[in-house]
Amino acid sequence: MRVLGVDPGLTRCGVGVVEGVAGRALTMRGVGVVRTPADAELGDRLVAVERGIEQWLDEHRPEVVAVERVFSQHNVSTVMGTAQASAVAMLCAARRGIPVALHTPSEVKAAVTGSGRADKAQVGAMVTRLLRLAAPPRPADAADALALAICHIWRAPAQNRLQQAVALHTPKGRTR
Amino acid sequence: MRVLGVDPGLTRCGVGVVEGVAGRALTMRGVGVVRTPADAELGDRLVAVERGIEQWLDEHRPEVVAVERVFSQHNVSTVMGTAQASAVAMLCAARRGIPVALHTPSEVKAAVTGSGRADKAQVGAMVTRLLRLAAPPRPADAADALALAICHIWRAPAQNRLQQAVALHTPKGRTR
Repeated sequence: MRVLGVDPGLTRCGVGVVEGVAGRALTMRGVGVVRTPADAELGDRLVAVERGIEQWLDEHRPEVVAVERVFSQHNVSTVMGTAQASAVAMLCAARRGIPVALHTPSEVKAAVTGSGRADKAQVGAMVTRLLRLAAPPRPADAADALALAICHIWRAPAQNRLQQAVALHTPKGRTR
Repeated sequence: MRVLGVDPGLTRCGVGVVEGVAGRALTMRGVGVVRTPADAELGDRLVAVERGIEQWLDEHRPEVVAVERVFSQHNVSTVMGTAQASAVAMLCAARRGIPVALHTPSEVKAAVTGSGRADKAQVGAMVTRLLRLAAPPRPADAADALALAICHIWRAPAQNRLQQAVALHTPKGRTR
């Protein structure tokens, strides 16, 4: 499974591609950051994010795009830009028929460090170890994008089993 | 000036096109709602919003797109969907090089009713009167989209004068 993780943001949108299956060693296929100038018009910044995400999708052809689930109770001053950048990432994926998976920050931290309250340094250290990198990816947004992709690869089997169980026990026509 | 107003939302995204200049009678060119099913995947809903907005841009060729400015301190349960839908609307406009203007709900209410705290019924009544319609547009999201377009037409001259004044008094290279 090849997953593009996206840590959404307008100033820095982290992107990272990880390939692998749960229970086996994972491989990093690419990592980077899509940046947009803070002094540009909001609409133009969203166009720049779109262009960046499209390039990553073109180059890496992921089977799934894993995006951080944005909560409105977070940092009020940045949450709108995060929500808008995440909307663009989800739009780009869905337009190509690529499934979008959302994971919360604490799910991601718990997946890669064992604790939902791990700090940035811990996440960066574990991403470095799990992907056998020479050094932690910089900036932190890039490491977070890789952590999202790893989280998705490891959680997907459990999520699929859950969905199958729900489908089995849901009356026909209500399975979505 | 022809303005497409967008009252962003995932379930109902109000759209309305108004033509005119400040100080003259205004004309409605179209009004409607882009709807997406609440039980669809979020990515697919954003694709549906994009498709709807593109159709309105194709058909009406607005010179400006006026979008409601979303505040994160609003209703926490709906604000994320609103932010995501507004991002798609801004993206569609900016991709075509159409300027995007943001107006707050209270700016819109004040523009069309004289009070920033007017209720939905008052806004609907004034939109009906100003555009000489037979009845208030339904649903309220459609009326709000028209109100946004009217607000932009009426505020634009003052905003342009302000921008010119700022440009005149700002050292070169720091005009934004």
